[in-house]
Amino acid sequence: MLKEMLKNVYENHPLIHNITNYVTVNDCANILLACGASPIMSDEALEVEEITKICSGLNLNIGTLNERVLASMLIAGKHANALNHPVLLDPVGAGASSLRTNSAIKIMKKIKLSVIRGNISEIKTLIDGNGRTRGVDANEDDGISALNDGISSFKAFAESTGTIIVVTGATDIITDGKISYAVTNGVPMMSSITGSGCMLSALITAFISANRENMCSAALAAVVMMGIAGEKAFAKLQQIGGGNSTYRNLMIDEIYNMTPDSLEKGARYARR
Amino acid sequence: MLKEMLKNVYENHPLIHNITNYVTVNDCANILLACGASPIMSDEALEVEEITKICSGLNLNIGTLNERVLASMLIAGKHANALNHPVLLDPVGAGASSLRTNSAIKIMKKIKLSVIRGNISEIKTLIDGNGRTRGVDANEDDGISALNDGISSFKAFAESTGTIIVVTGATDIITDGKISYAVTNGVPMMSSITGSGCMLSALITAFISANRENMCSAALAAVVMMGIAGEKAFAKLQQIGGGNSTYRNLMIDEIYNMTPDSLEKGARYARR
Amino acid sequence: MLKEMLKNVYENHPLIHNITNYVTVNDCANILLACGASPIMSDEALEVEEITKICSGLNLNIGTLNERVLASMLIAGKHANALNHPVLLDPVGAGASSLRTNSAIKIMKKIKLSVIRGNISEIKTLIDGNGRTRGVDANEDDGISALNDGISSFKAFAESTGTIIVVTGATDIITDGKISYAVTNGVPMMSSITGSGCMLSALITAFISANRENMCSAALAAVVMMGIAGEKAFAKLQQIGGGNSTYRNLMIDEIYNMTPDSLEKGARYARR
Repeated sequence: MLKEMLKNVYENHPLIHNITNYVTVNDCANILLACGASPIMSDEALEVEEITKICSGLNLNIGTLNERVLASMLIAGKHANALNHPVLLDPVGAGASSLRTNSAIKIMKKIKLSVIRGNISEIKTLIDGNGRTRGVDANEDDGISALNDGISSFKAFAESTGTIIVVTGATDIITDGKISYAVTNGVPMMSSITGSGCMLSALITAFISANRENMCSAALAAVVMMGIAGEKAFAKLQQIGGGNSTYRNLMIDEIYNMTPDSLEKGARYARR
Repeated sequence: MLKEMLKNVYENHPLIHNITNYVTVNDCANILLACGASPIMSDEALEVEEITKICSGLNLNIGTLNERVLASMLIAGKHANALNHPVLLDPVGAGASSLRTNSAIKIMKKIKLSVIRGNISEIKTLIDGNGRTRGVDANEDDGISALNDGISSFKAFAESTGTIIVVTGATDIITDGKISYAVTNGVPMMSSITGSGCMLSALITAFISANRENMCSAALAAVVMMGIAGEKAFAKLQQIGGGNSTYRNLMIDEIYNMTPDSLEKGARYARR
Repeated sequence: MLKEMLKNVYENHPLIHNITNYVTVNDCANILLACGASPIMSDEALEVEEITKICSGLNLNIGTLNERVLASMLIAGKHANALNHPVLLDPVGAGASSLRTNSAIKIMKKIKLSVIRGNISEIKTLIDGNGRTRGVDANEDDGISALNDGISSFKAFAESTGTIIVVTGATDIITDGKISYAVTNGVPMMSSITGSGCMLSALITAFISANRENMCSAALAAVVMMGIAGEKAFAKLQQIGGGNSTYRNLMIDEIYNMTPDSLEKGARYARR
């Protein structure tokens, strides 16, 4: 099943509109190219309608949010909704500031989102406003047990919002409220680089844009693909040596070189 | 001839003022250092006059344009003109939005440009306003035949504007209206990374700034250099393995390691 | 002594708030992760107080300054002062424009800084307003002799401002006015990439934040660590080949792989 999702990215070659942070934007662009999609970045209110119009999906990431860009996100999001394009929200650092928390909630209210992807702290913040975020990294309690405890609330959140929720950590959860998956692909070293979450959000946006009728499976495929890439990159790093910078490059490389079959074969997930 | 152009970059070590997008800006800085030039980035209206004054050339790139930055580009461009510094425009995504198309045209009208570099869609948009751009990547019809058909219009555009036109794709065209070159250096994988166009624009700006009396040959040398770097990087990638992220690094590396002789020797171009 | 400084970074795992330029921001984030710290980037006035509050230190870098971001720096800096968090200023390009020079001086006056790190041109600009900066790179006279001549003025500057001054170049000087160090770790190739200075500033911020009682030694340890990483990366580059882009990755990798013992063992510095 998963390999069809990647094949559709190759075939549809979706152009993705990214309104994202300036920290990891280059990696997001390169991972979109690596998976067979194409990136365009635009955060200017005067043009985001036109840009979104020529794209197949919209990736909203609040990693270095400011008021100007938030306004552009809302304009682009509304237009993407009108065009029935998939929209993903990556609520980077929700819980770390009122601006981020409130902006993420505002985007959720004003824009129909196809997917929200965050770490457990960010998603919990959106669910109950009680989450506390340690910056943009996952908290130390973002382990499997926390995910097990949280999965029912993620399902309820997905159901009430009509949005696919992707919670990433040691185990990744994907749920649309009815169907849920737990993915165990990936290695701890993925958190040693900046942007592995942002890159995954870009990747998911490409997958859901190329698999409009099957977004939950598409999101699953993207999460699995990132995890396998992380594993393969880690294995290669053990051979050639190096640290987190080389690891980042290897991870994007593995996305570039992954085949539909290797995606299917490497997948480690279960229905939940 | 081409090797003299690179030698002059090494000797003059031009400092280049870049007002550019936040997606590929780091790669642009590193490729300028790789070729023997130096970068400075500044997009704040309050300082661009002073920054341009200490530089030898100005690289304007509208990849993530907004109104604030457009105003800075116009200020910097006028000042660069007054100082007789070469100015390059990279009209990233012209045709994808009215803002980009109109801003590129506004810059063309208000600033005396030494070089415009874009893909065929972007250049056609500037020529006749009829081009349609698929984001920041080249369209599928950007092949040799399209270039052959377009070359007379590029020449006319160069002549009427007094600007060297560089159109990049499978074959690259450089023309000042009188002299034209077609470059066949390069490999398709260059389009698998973000920023190969932006990097080339930065490189050309360095070359024309260090070869003020011979800008058309300087632009040719930069285009050839990028193409050879793309070829050498691709050959190395076949040996060591990897994907588009490693390829990006190898391409900048090859610019760093290129000698005037290897530039001259590897060149594949013809007068047109 | 130096190894304790690094051990404390590992143990305290400080979260660093960076208000920095969009050119080298990704490298700064990755080097913070490489050394055992964590990055968060935020430059929006509406949230910088809250962001600084959850962090242990603040890194201010004026590499692509604008008025909006300057305002955010002042808000964040005041709040960091109130919380007694270490604050570092990297006055990138001070001397290259009035905006940069005046903004750096304004920050110095309004914010209690723990460390200022710059090249000799930038630091001289702050000392006497007479420095002339060639963009963001060090000037050609930034050699050992210039540092020898300048060291007494750096000491006086450190003493009068109550700030640790770090001047980087062929030889690096660290002084709090009473104790001074000259570091000879590092290789010339470190200046062939963009951001080696910015990365060092981020690294120093992590070290001083994790070693609050011993900031001068912490700054020394960070400078030494960066220099050793540059040396090791250069040695590896000789083995595997490549240019400045690979060198950048190797340098971050070496920070990631450095142990407290290899830091202590590789250090080359003297009291001055």
